[in-house]
Amino acid sequence: MSGEFTFIDWIRGQTRPNTRVLIGPGDDCAALSPGRSPWLITTDMLMDGTDFVLAEVGPHRVGLKAMAVNLSDLAAMAGRPVGVVVSVALPRGDDTLGRDLYHGLREMADSFGVPIVGGDTNSWAGPLVISVTAFGEAERPVRRNGAKPGDWLFVTGPLGGSILGHHLDFTPRIAEALRLHETVDLHAMIDISDGLSADLHHILEESRCGAVLHAEAIPIAEAARQLTQQSSKTPLEHALGDGEDFELVFAVSPEDGEKLLREPPVQVWKIGECVADGYWIEEQKNRRPLVPTGWVHSL
Amino acid sequence: MSGEFTFIDWIRGQTRPNTRVLIGPGDDCAALSPGRSPWLITTDMLMDGTDFVLAEVGPHRVGLKAMAVNLSDLAAMAGRPVGVVVSVALPRGDDTLGRDLYHGLREMADSFGVPIVGGDTNSWAGPLVISVTAFGEAERPVRRNGAKPGDWLFVTGPLGGSILGHHLDFTPRIAEALRLHETVDLHAMIDISDGLSADLHHILEESRCGAVLHAEAIPIAEAARQLTQQSSKTPLEHALGDGEDFELVFAVSPEDGEKLLREPPVQVWKIGECVADGYWIEEQKNRRPLVPTGWVHSL
Repeated sequence: MSGEFTFIDWIRGQTRPNTRVLIGPGDDCAALSPGRSPWLITTDMLMDGTDFVLAEVGPHRVGLKAMAVNLSDLAAMAGRPVGVVVSVALPRGDDTLGRDLYHGLREMADSFGVPIVGGDTNSWAGPLVISVTAFGEAERPVRRNGAKPGDWLFVTGPLGGSILGHHLDFTPRIAEALRLHETVDLHAMIDISDGLSADLHHILEESRCGAVLHAEAIPIAEAARQLTQQSSKTPLEHALGDGEDFELVFAVSPEDGEKLLREPPVQVWKIGECVADGYWIEEQKNRRPLVPTGWVHSL
Repeated sequence: MSGEFTFIDWIRGQTRPNTRVLIGPGDDCAALSPGRSPWLITTDMLMDGTDFVLAEVGPHRVGLKAMAVNLSDLAAMAGRPVGVVVSVALPRGDDTLGRDLYHGLREMADSFGVPIVGGDTNSWAGPLVISVTAFGEAERPVRRNGAKPGDWLFVTGPLGGSILGHHLDFTPRIAEALRLHETVDLHAMIDISDGLSADLHHILEESRCGAVLHAEAIPIAEAARQLTQQSSKTPLEHALGDGEDFELVFAVSPEDGEKLLREPPVQVWKIGECVADGYWIEEQKNRRPLVPTGWVHSL
């Protein structure tokens, strides 16, 4: 972790004590107390012009998003966040960019009590690049491969149209994942980053089963409806295909599914069931094949 | 860890089993078995044009370096590497870049038996950016703050002139650090990334003491001598000021220091002693102040 300047000074100045942080920024590595559960590790890199447009959204919201997308990956496995490290390449010549970016990162991390334990701050002639690595713990991590035919499928929130703002302002479903994990046996789970149809397809591939979604049951975000005014798609198509909702989609047994409908520990929507084979959407009793193409990173 | 394509496929194809990897790439996070020691975490981002010139050195050597600089930070605290994750922004349009970069990363990781457990692969219109996060373990991490007046100072190899090639081809001193940690009580240690005088100064600041270096005792790399032909500096100035040697500098008690000279477990050079105050270099019995300016990342 060489080349630090401002970030490390700011991190050192953080006041909230954290019992897990044995050694914080200032040595060559951070050190955390071990714990008893498996470590979870995830990393995501965001680049100006690809994952955000810095000139439009500003560095604070980029910081929020860079932190949140990583915490969302921990949520997808029902992990408790333990800490993060942050690497950045800052475009030269903007004195306040690093500070505002850091404040966004800290705001999101603080809202989950997660310490930023280290980083690597660089400047260069290129556009802003930020890479966050988050680590957490889960005694029983929830994977993608445990869904079974007959399982019920749920999502934690309305979907589609996140490009209008939600992709920058979402709340990673850490708390929801932990509550669900306490309440029911989560057979498989993923966070929706590439789009419902694409990410659910990852679960189906890993679990070697199929699914039927009920079009009328899929919760559609207001933004998805707004977006139809400027797109050639229906609200449902936006809900199925748009990326970066960062809600969770998960599979549970029918018994657990009924329990969730009866006494929901957090807001959930039942959207379909797992079947032995195929990938289908049912609309007014008509079943047609569903294509697992979600949002694709602009290339 | 969304947006993966080739890297994750390659990582999935890795054949060496590793008992610590509970869940590898393919889920939202990697999961590692917990162990009993504190976790060490470090991250370093390298950018084309700043840390390397891709067109001159090629992607394989960039991969070697990006992995090695992170392992060197683990070495600095006498950590055992447990795993790494890698994020990259690949410039669009070069089909073999990602593969060759990955082979360099794997070659260096394999030489220390470290699994690459996950990553995030992106492409964009900008230059190559690569961010590695390495995690390890150390029952007793060696910090920067334990040097005492009277301690002897050692380095693990000749210094200076790394810009001629060593900065791309070095071996992180993981094995040496572990051997030294078994043999003596390492009071303080750091890896030389910014230059001997700058990095030793970090130890002195954290330990609140001073040091005297013996000019004649500092091992000077052949490259430092070569470099004088095109620079206005002496070989000693290169050894003191050049960055990216990635050797270790450390402090031990005089008793342990004598033990290291008598029966060195690895190659070491005694370069000076810690004193109560000040930062000095002694040449032919003349003592003059040493300035803690090492190599500065080109800005």
